[in-house]
Amino acid sequence: MEVVRVGLGDRSYDINIGTDCLSRLGDLCRGVSLAGKAAVITNPTVAGLYLDRVRSSLLASGYEVAVITIPDGEEFKTAATLETIYDRLLAEGLHRGAFIVALGGGVVGDIAGYAAATFLRGIPFVQVPTTLLAQVDSSVGGKTGINHPRGKNLIGAFYQPRLVLIDLLTLDTLPWREYLCGLAEALKYGIVLDRGLFEYLSANVTAIKAIDKAALLHVVAACCSIKASVVERDEREGGLRAVLNYGHTIGHAVETLTEYRRFKHGEAVAIGMARIALLSQQRGLADADETRRILALMEEIGFPLELPLFSLDEYVEVIGHDKKKSDDGVSFIFNRGIGGYSIEKVKDLRALLANFNGDH
Amino acid sequence: MEVVRVGLGDRSYDINIGTDCLSRLGDLCRGVSLAGKAAVITNPTVAGLYLDRVRSSLLASGYEVAVITIPDGEEFKTAATLETIYDRLLAEGLHRGAFIVALGGGVVGDIAGYAAATFLRGIPFVQVPTTLLAQVDSSVGGKTGINHPRGKNLIGAFYQPRLVLIDLLTLDTLPWREYLCGLAEALKYGIVLDRGLFEYLSANVTAIKAIDKAALLHVVAACCSIKASVVERDEREGGLRAVLNYGHTIGHAVETLTEYRRFKHGEAVAIGMARIALLSQQRGLADADETRRILALMEEIGFPLELPLFSLDEYVEVIGHDKKKSDDGVSFIFNRGIGGYSIEKVKDLRALLANFNGDH
Repeated sequence: MEVVRVGLGDRSYDINIGTDCLSRLGDLCRGVSLAGKAAVITNPTVAGLYLDRVRSSLLASGYEVAVITIPDGEEFKTAATLETIYDRLLAEGLHRGAFIVALGGGVVGDIAGYAAATFLRGIPFVQVPTTLLAQVDSSVGGKTGINHPRGKNLIGAFYQPRLVLIDLLTLDTLPWREYLCGLAEALKYGIVLDRGLFEYLSANVTAIKAIDKAALLHVVAACCSIKASVVERDEREGGLRAVLNYGHTIGHAVETLTEYRRFKHGEAVAIGMARIALLSQQRGLADADETRRILALMEEIGFPLELPLFSLDEYVEVIGHDKKKSDDGVSFIFNRGIGGYSIEKVKDLRALLANFNGDH
Repeated sequence: MEVVRVGLGDRSYDINIGTDCLSRLGDLCRGVSLAGKAAVITNPTVAGLYLDRVRSSLLASGYEVAVITIPDGEEFKTAATLETIYDRLLAEGLHRGAFIVALGGGVVGDIAGYAAATFLRGIPFVQVPTTLLAQVDSSVGGKTGINHPRGKNLIGAFYQPRLVLIDLLTLDTLPWREYLCGLAEALKYGIVLDRGLFEYLSANVTAIKAIDKAALLHVVAACCSIKASVVERDEREGGLRAVLNYGHTIGHAVETLTEYRRFKHGEAVAIGMARIALLSQQRGLADADETRRILALMEEIGFPLELPLFSLDEYVEVIGHDKKKSDDGVSFIFNRGIGGYSIEKVKDLRALLANFNGDH
């Protein structure tokens, strides 16, 4: 197993990455001195595939185990689902000496992490992410939370897990579109933070598309290291952490305009990255060859790249309402060549986006 | 104004204590670099008395102000009230650059602090406690939260305010029973942590009962300092902080058995303290003279001292279910003389409580 350390003082933890390693969970929990009952929070799909292994491992290490199943899907990341989790935690008699295991993708991780952050003013939790997106992104950095009718992730807390266990075998059962969403985030790290990762992805597209575990071990470990180093320097998103939003401002606009129906989040981010790569070149931050390489790799992996057809006015309107907006404009993350970035406030969205619907 | 610093690394903050000082609020907020809109969360009673002064001060310092009023009373410290706060914060357009001001007693402080801890994964908040209980206890230490149908404060977070402003004038409008509840907590600090405070309270009972501001400045500042030093050493209640539960285990049993109707929390704690003082003497931790002094002071202040009449079985049953219970018994905080303490796990509750209903 490869181990990536997230160094956050007394909130530090290890991300353990391996293949066919769910059986190690109990030992790892003992290793960080977790005691008491374990409440595994998962969804029916993941439970059908991996709950037995997780439960067996915890039982073998002497833990009592309770299982809390929540419905699958972003639309259930709500205050109502959270209440059912609290009710079950109380019914199971969990007290401060207990802990939560989040077994699933981003939705399970976010809501289970938030339940852990707020139950009895915080009990320990462990992340076992089973989607590539959760493995490279949402399981690192301590963002937890739920959605509100007015927007996604509006209620939440920064709360770090005590350990993360990533079993790459879980990717074999992941739907292809979900897998691509994770790859979009991995590529993001390469484009704005780590040219080496970009080159590795370029050189190993075939292996990665074949879900080759050796290649994925390299990619997932690299992504976790990169995100860890960003989070270590900016745990609560004061500044630097914003770089992780590369592609997301336009991506969110795409999601909003298509009413969250047509694209998955990662797909929308991919569309946003393709577009911001072109805008970066237009601003003189990247040359034509670098931009071509980025777009070629995205096409080869199989991301959607075309911006859905809405008017410039509609894009300006939606992006103008982005939550990253402040009085001096909307923050955009541009790529500086490959492996670098530039965060810039843009006041005149219309001017920036004028060529927005043009060809690439 | 007297200032007590709570030293918690990058979460440190000042408690500012004075008389007729609500007009300083805006300046103090500027002093800790708070920016953006201020959302004042309060209840109708407190709003009628102090909202104008608070709002004027914030406006004079250039802040935009929104006011969110929640119903008065512990029974409204719920998930439902929290949702209405989130809705209003969103309707008022609060973003990460904004902050919350909790103006009121413990209920307002707990729920407003929890809203601050969880809105947009945490925005800054300021405590302006207007009850003695909140001033000496709940506004220090970062405990925030709401109740759950299964119990009090089951959902919450440790989240520190950016500053606390205590105006002792607010105590003039506090109902007498509420005032006594605050004094019970003040006395608690004296009995188990600070003999000097106990002596001061003994020597100044008349002034304190007359709500004399000079005496109260001394008492409130002393309580905040004591609690701050405890919280500094044990922010998340791993061990030492438990000492602050002196009198609370029996107090909770009294509240439960009387179904939270007959006594206010502070009154139940006073009853618990009187009883645990007797048990401390019984265990040889305090001598008869010390115990007599404690009980005499409590009587002079005017606390209820008599344990309500339930059977030993009922007390054993209820205390056995206390949330501070672990496998090796229930934790009790005993006083060691006056100004000292001893935390001991008690397995045989029946033996401990055998003389429980006896005379003192």
